Amino acid sequence: MITVVTGNKNKAAEVAAFFNGVEEVAHISFETIEPQSDSVSEVAEEKARQAYSALKRPLIVDDTGLFIEALKGFPGVYAAYVLDTVGNSGILKLMENVSEENRKAYFMTSIAFADEDGIHTFEGRVDGTIACKPRGDLGFGYDPIFEVSGKTLAEMDMSEKNSISHRARALMIFRDWYLAEKQI
Amino acid sequence: MITVVTGNKNKAAEVAAFFNGVEEVAHISFETIEPQSDSVSEVAEEKARQAYSALKRPLIVDDTGLFIEALKGFPGVYAAYVLDTVGNSGILKLMENVSEENRKAYFMTSIAFADEDGIHTFEGRVDGTIACKPRGDLGFGYDPIFEVSGKTLAEMDMSEKNSISHRARALMIFRDWYLAEKQI
Repeated sequence: MITVVTGNKNKAAEVAAFFNGVEEVAHISFETIEPQSDSVSEVAEEKARQAYSALKRPLIVDDTGLFIEALKGFPGVYAAYVLDTVGNSGILKLMENVSEENRKAYFMTSIAFADEDGIHTFEGRVDGTIACKPRGDLGFGYDPIFEVSGKTLAEMDMSEKNSISHRARALMIFRDWYLAEKQI
Repeated sequence: MITVVTGNKNKAAEVAAFFNGVEEVAHISFETIEPQSDSVSEVAEEKARQAYSALKRPLIVDDTGLFIEALKGFPGVYAAYVLDTVGNSGILKLMENVSEENRKAYFMTSIAFADEDGIHTFEGRVDGTIACKPRGDLGFGYDPIFEVSGKTLAEMDMSEKNSISHRARALMIFRDWYLAEKQI
């Protein structure tokens, strides 16, 4: 059994869908201290360490960031905080005079798995660009301003978005490793 | 004796100057996990808890944030990270169309003191406004864009700046409490 440590039930359901009955997936909400770090993997690893030392069972924790090249990686691992304060309109303002070829950005999710053998992290990344204005009504968060192959994530339906998602990629890599490692 | 936990030697010297021989001040560099939180006091308190549980001696840790009203408190406790990425020019861009009366901001420093009796925090705050462009060559960080009574912090010499500084205020409150509490 793998326990998904998150405040968000949908995330646990998503992981369960990935394991599709091959491994049992439980969900627990557990408060961890979220460290300040530049790296989503460091954040996920530290949270997994804290959760494992309290819960003592195989578990995963994830962390996601948005890294914009022209802003030296900002908002990075603080993506959620920045969305709540300056928001998409703030990001677009910061990018106002940035030319098309310098609008590169990526989303990165890191999943940290902890068990008695230690901690492993798995990263999924999706590369794109920051749009000049928001487009699309689907999704949430930065989706309307993050563009991949000419479409923002908010212009993609769920299945299209999931097919390129950083989180889905990290989950796939983790699942493959887990099934091989644990010989399931 | 009070141990100042910081990577910055100047901070320890500043504390020693405040205690001016009444109490011995030592300095130690100790890595703590900096939690993600909206509050400088929560950050300082958590770092003091970590440091005390490892070092087991009376110590202080501080944390400082810049809170801009029109940006819902951004950059807050992430002031250092935001300075390194989008910088003062980024802050000014975000504030471009914000009128004079809505440019209020404050710096807040919290000092957390930990000893065998627990943890106490002490806050110092300086209120000001975000300037429309950078002015002044003194100081560092956000000083050129943070204005108090018509002058930016970068237009003040050290003694003038110290007379209004958030950090100096927090230190004074802490010192007064400490000397009374410990009956020195």
